[in-house]
Amino acid sequence: MPQKIRLGMVGGGQGAFIGAVHRIASRIDDRYELLAGAFSSNAEKAITSGQEIGIDEDRNYKNFNEMIEAESSREDKIDAVAIVTPNHMHHPIAMAFMNKGFNVICDKPLAMNLRQCEELVQSKQHNDVLFALTHNYTGYPMIRNARALCHNGDLGKIRVIQAEYAQDWLTEDLENKINDGGNKQASWRTDPNQSGAGGCIGDIGTHAYNLIRYVTGLDTQQISAELTSFVPGRNLDDNAQISLRFKEGAKGTIWSSQIAPGNENHLQIRIYGEQAGLEWCQEDPNYLYFTKYGEPKQKITRGGAGALNVSNEVTRIPPGHPEGYLEGFANIYTDVANALIDKKNGTFNPDNHQFPSVEDGLEGIKFIERSIASSSSNSSWVNF
Amino acid sequence: MPQKIRLGMVGGGQGAFIGAVHRIASRIDDRYELLAGAFSSNAEKAITSGQEIGIDEDRNYKNFNEMIEAESSREDKIDAVAIVTPNHMHHPIAMAFMNKGFNVICDKPLAMNLRQCEELVQSKQHNDVLFALTHNYTGYPMIRNARALCHNGDLGKIRVIQAEYAQDWLTEDLENKINDGGNKQASWRTDPNQSGAGGCIGDIGTHAYNLIRYVTGLDTQQISAELTSFVPGRNLDDNAQISLRFKEGAKGTIWSSQIAPGNENHLQIRIYGEQAGLEWCQEDPNYLYFTKYGEPKQKITRGGAGALNVSNEVTRIPPGHPEGYLEGFANIYTDVANALIDKKNGTFNPDNHQFPSVEDGLEGIKFIERSIASSSSNSSWVNF
Amino acid sequence: MPQKIRLGMVGGGQGAFIGAVHRIASRIDDRYELLAGAFSSNAEKAITSGQEIGIDEDRNYKNFNEMIEAESSREDKIDAVAIVTPNHMHHPIAMAFMNKGFNVICDKPLAMNLRQCEELVQSKQHNDVLFALTHNYTGYPMIRNARALCHNGDLGKIRVIQAEYAQDWLTEDLENKINDGGNKQASWRTDPNQSGAGGCIGDIGTHAYNLIRYVTGLDTQQISAELTSFVPGRNLDDNAQISLRFKEGAKGTIWSSQIAPGNENHLQIRIYGEQAGLEWCQEDPNYLYFTKYGEPKQKITRGGAGALNVSNEVTRIPPGHPEGYLEGFANIYTDVANALIDKKNGTFNPDNHQFPSVEDGLEGIKFIERSIASSSSNSSWVNF
Amino acid sequence: MPQKIRLGMVGGGQGAFIGAVHRIASRIDDRYELLAGAFSSNAEKAITSGQEIGIDEDRNYKNFNEMIEAESSREDKIDAVAIVTPNHMHHPIAMAFMNKGFNVICDKPLAMNLRQCEELVQSKQHNDVLFALTHNYTGYPMIRNARALCHNGDLGKIRVIQAEYAQDWLTEDLENKINDGGNKQASWRTDPNQSGAGGCIGDIGTHAYNLIRYVTGLDTQQISAELTSFVPGRNLDDNAQISLRFKEGAKGTIWSSQIAPGNENHLQIRIYGEQAGLEWCQEDPNYLYFTKYGEPKQKITRGGAGALNVSNEVTRIPPGHPEGYLEGFANIYTDVANALIDKKNGTFNPDNHQFPSVEDGLEGIKFIERSIASSSSNSSWVNF
Repeated sequence: MPQKIRLGMVGGGQGAFIGAVHRIASRIDDRYELLAGAFSSNAEKAITSGQEIGIDEDRNYKNFNEMIEAESSREDKIDAVAIVTPNHMHHPIAMAFMNKGFNVICDKPLAMNLRQCEELVQSKQHNDVLFALTHNYTGYPMIRNARALCHNGDLGKIRVIQAEYAQDWLTEDLENKINDGGNKQASWRTDPNQSGAGGCIGDIGTHAYNLIRYVTGLDTQQISAELTSFVPGRNLDDNAQISLRFKEGAKGTIWSSQIAPGNENHLQIRIYGEQAGLEWCQEDPNYLYFTKYGEPKQKITRGGAGALNVSNEVTRIPPGHPEGYLEGFANIYTDVANALIDKKNGTFNPDNHQFPSVEDGLEGIKFIERSIASSSSNSSWVNF
Repeated sequence: MPQKIRLGMVGGGQGAFIGAVHRIASRIDDRYELLAGAFSSNAEKAITSGQEIGIDEDRNYKNFNEMIEAESSREDKIDAVAIVTPNHMHHPIAMAFMNKGFNVICDKPLAMNLRQCEELVQSKQHNDVLFALTHNYTGYPMIRNARALCHNGDLGKIRVIQAEYAQDWLTEDLENKINDGGNKQASWRTDPNQSGAGGCIGDIGTHAYNLIRYVTGLDTQQISAELTSFVPGRNLDDNAQISLRFKEGAKGTIWSSQIAPGNENHLQIRIYGEQAGLEWCQEDPNYLYFTKYGEPKQKITRGGAGALNVSNEVTRIPPGHPEGYLEGFANIYTDVANALIDKKNGTFNPDNHQFPSVEDGLEGIKFIERSIASSSSNSSWVNF
Repeated sequence: MPQKIRLGMVGGGQGAFIGAVHRIASRIDDRYELLAGAFSSNAEKAITSGQEIGIDEDRNYKNFNEMIEAESSREDKIDAVAIVTPNHMHHPIAMAFMNKGFNVICDKPLAMNLRQCEELVQSKQHNDVLFALTHNYTGYPMIRNARALCHNGDLGKIRVIQAEYAQDWLTEDLENKINDGGNKQASWRTDPNQSGAGGCIGDIGTHAYNLIRYVTGLDTQQISAELTSFVPGRNLDDNAQISLRFKEGAKGTIWSSQIAPGNENHLQIRIYGEQAGLEWCQEDPNYLYFTKYGEPKQKITRGGAGALNVSNEVTRIPPGHPEGYLEGFANIYTDVANALIDKKNGTFNPDNHQFPSVEDGLEGIKFIERSIASSSSNSSWVNF
Repeated sequence: MPQKIRLGMVGGGQGAFIGAVHRIASRIDDRYELLAGAFSSNAEKAITSGQEIGIDEDRNYKNFNEMIEAESSREDKIDAVAIVTPNHMHHPIAMAFMNKGFNVICDKPLAMNLRQCEELVQSKQHNDVLFALTHNYTGYPMIRNARALCHNGDLGKIRVIQAEYAQDWLTEDLENKINDGGNKQASWRTDPNQSGAGGCIGDIGTHAYNLIRYVTGLDTQQISAELTSFVPGRNLDDNAQISLRFKEGAKGTIWSSQIAPGNENHLQIRIYGEQAGLEWCQEDPNYLYFTKYGEPKQKITRGGAGALNVSNEVTRIPPGHPEGYLEGFANIYTDVANALIDKKNGTFNPDNHQFPSVEDGLEGIKFIERSIASSSSNSSWVNF
């Protein structure tokens, strides 16, 4: 039984969504204790939220600066901080924690722009800390399985990738209906000051892009994008159609939308190589469809016949008993826990871990910026 | 923030499956602390297992009797014990704990026979404790939704119920291949001395039966069963075909099998009434298909449009982000946590809770016994 | 280019459903010419219907007796007659045609009772004619594929068969609403005088039963049935739950219903053997799911990778271009056309043909009668 | 009973695929007689093919010129000619027939270039003939249903269209394996001299584009394309990723591929408007998924509850009995038959018919040429 990781959290108080998800994810495999937090930018709300979560009074902080200061001087200081604020606060908070030597688990997108990302990368290296970015979909076992199939050469050389992430919850202008069916989520996610320059492309398009990179390992060469804001008055894109050219010769497209009625969290990736094809859908994540050219389509199930070890290692229950989003998220947290222990023991080796990192976050911001640049220049190809 | 429930566990040590599931389920909503346990019938294994789980030395017991004695005298004694041993130990352990006033969370099937069940029911009443039976599939949000639709009359009077639970993992005689691909699970689950008189009907058929009762609220009148042991040398049934007559006039069938290649945990329930039909499948638990006669089939998703409050209340994340088996299991645990607190506060009211109880366990054993009786008398109808 | 078969038809005039289906099926592969007919029991309607269909005046008959007489004396007489009347007329019409040496294509169920069936079998033999029964679902390519997999031993010894045919169109008493949303179909199909003693079991249950026999080749030993008429005032069963014991040791169930909202023509068959399992659904007939124990589920598509020759031979277009009900029906007609030509040439060999015959029809009526007998004696097992 | 249309055919002899499809499609509703043909560019093969098809000797022609001359002078001359040759012959044959006043049914793509298309449009007008282009997917009932939903405003203003047509049969270079698993189809379809400048984009991409136009009625403003030939040595594109801007403000993408293992004829169209979304897949054509924003997804089935009249009018059998590709194709033929009769009677009105025409064919070639132009200029937007 390895010792539990002492976790702190910034953001994720009352009314927030992703903070609660991080907390559940950290509990599932019993590898963390949440001991400290500054759960809101509003001091009062921070304290109330921390009380509800069950944080001891002396580690329930009014703001993240107070938290850093206090935790730094504790002997039992937190091992890592989870940053689950709106996007615009990722950078200052992560920088502040890293500067004091804290390891960071940060929600995506990493930051507001490339410059911030580069600073974060440098800070991570300079301070010799671990930095995990919760591109949580990489934690799904069948994504790990898909990745292994690609890396093992089962698809042959990859030719075509079709990825998409479609939602429908912003079909109407919820951000302007805050008192009438709208919600806080819609409000900050469509506000450039809190979300950054990307709307739907930043919020969900980056997940699709990250999955492509994670699963295939391909390097992007050029990108062409068509971003649109369909809902009148919306300040950020709510639909994105993107083409990709990869250095290795493959071609890809990403469709990302938040205005497609009938789509809840339709994140899908399809990969076609010279010898086989793969299809996976986030809403039914326990199934991976694999077709060798000239053979019948196979339905590989999480933990089932034909599933690879790399996916079985991150599954908890037998095939046919579905795992979901939270278990995938937990796989990231557990991998980070292992990494933190290795680091303590001086045995950390990135090759033994699969969690997305600050460098992946930088790639995601690059994806957003290059897409916006292309879209602004009439979808011309932009070098990556 | 309600205080956490102090949980103990009996069984669930190294090599066990369901104990680990209970532990995860208890953690997901952060309502429990696992503080004590006797994790194996083998004392040495019990201690090692408890150490791995992270139990303090003084509450890591060699056996359940020691545990009862020690916990009884503690001021911070456990609030409830989770019993996750093989079936034959449910009764003695639960009796012993209830006799000392402990609340019980017990895996299914409840016991080895009806007499044991009746003793458990009486003990529960006599000792005024809570007794939850983890028929976990009742915890799925869309099962709660289906139940509400039935109870609200959206189906009209129910006519036909088709339930099934099919697996394939016992297609071969794994119980005799313990050193050759077989496993401990196959061994005890096909052994009448550990499992009881029912094989597949007890292990999984009871889940299907429990779901029928839970969702529809119908009362069984008569049962006719055809149990078969297809695998040579197997001591218990591995396939069961069962017909049901309900007091309210509905008819039903249950098919339960552990030898159906291509089925992992195919638990399905379909309910047809005078005005509408329902279909739900455990392997894709976030979807409930609902068809009003004369209208198109609707796909109701967990947390999505058309989902009822009763299901939304037991969902954690937005529609399209799948929850799975562990979250459904956690819903049982969280409901029990609420009940335990209500009980402490003297406000417990069974109508406010949905977890299956010892009485449901008795019904399950009745289902097994009546099925065996019918099958032994050439599938004749047996009164329930 | 083989010569076209000269076809006649009895029944299938205005307002009928299945007659039009037979006519399309006979045209698809261009092997028949429809040259004569008596299209209704009402003489006037017969003539009008024949005119609409485009039958020459001199072969557009007022009734089937006139048709037999006239056709018998023609040199270019029809090669075969298709009988598509309500069930109660199958026997007299088929007998009359066979007595004059005509080959018969008859819709199912074959007749009103076993005695009639036996007469038809004898007449067929006595008159040395061909007799095809249009259990059309046997014409689906993937059913042929499933049959071959069973016969080739790919499943190993068969253990369990789950078949079902569910509809919802008789959820309400359409037969009593003939002027109010009801229809002629509901009327005669729920009338014992026109349909025979079986309601839903005769109309659709027989299809499920026929498919089991066709695909597996197993022989029924005993049957137990629970027939119910749920709709008030209905004279025949509208729901049937049936158990089967096969001589070879397999067990099966059939569920047949016409009151299950959300089911249009949900005919499904699942077959499990010692080594593999098969699943097929009529509403998605181009897919056959095949799982070898211990391997991933395969989706075998009509004409696609892994499809067997026996199914490819009865497919017209490439995989991914769906064929449907009419093409399956046409496969029966085309097989009969080949048989008729072989018969003319004196080379007929039943082993070269796959169309269901009068003997299969007798088995179907036996299935209905035994089911009713069992249901009438409290679902006791009845020998087959 | 309307008189049957007298049909001739050019192409479609031995070894051809699409000719046989046209013949079946023309037979299904019994509205045509195939009376004449020149079935191959090879005279000997033409005659043999016509004999196999059962064409009378005097109307079984050695080539299309002979056919035009002979048919022109017959009193019972054909009413229309179906042209089912490789693409490069569509133009000369159609021109020759139209010049003699014959109506034309032509397979797609219409011709080799825009100039040819314009000549065909002019010839059609000049000669006052009917010209049907068999973009057969428009014949599917649920496509008609989707079109009506769009036109009736049920989706609100359309914002986003995602269409795709993926196959896998050209994953390897079948065109170079003519004696080794390759086939005639691969050979001519990848040869610019027979297929035109578009490979996969012409063969199947045009179907996706045509469906977008047919269903939504939107007008293309600009197009951006990325065409790729992945298979070494292939002379035409085998993968195409295309973006569309519509005049009405909507945005769309088309992905078309013939090298995507696991895809047989995966033609899919998804349409999202301000109020609702639609999804349809050719491989499961009897289902249309329709989601009003804020309501559960509905599965509308062909002929079933919620299906519109416009789709019911082109369906032959009850819901749950699947129709397929051939029936959809037949719907085009039957609509043309009605148009031909109207034309004879002087009552032809294009608003009463839904078959694609020569103008749609021109749009298809424009789509190919503009795509190639864009792809050749680094995917820049090209005006339509």
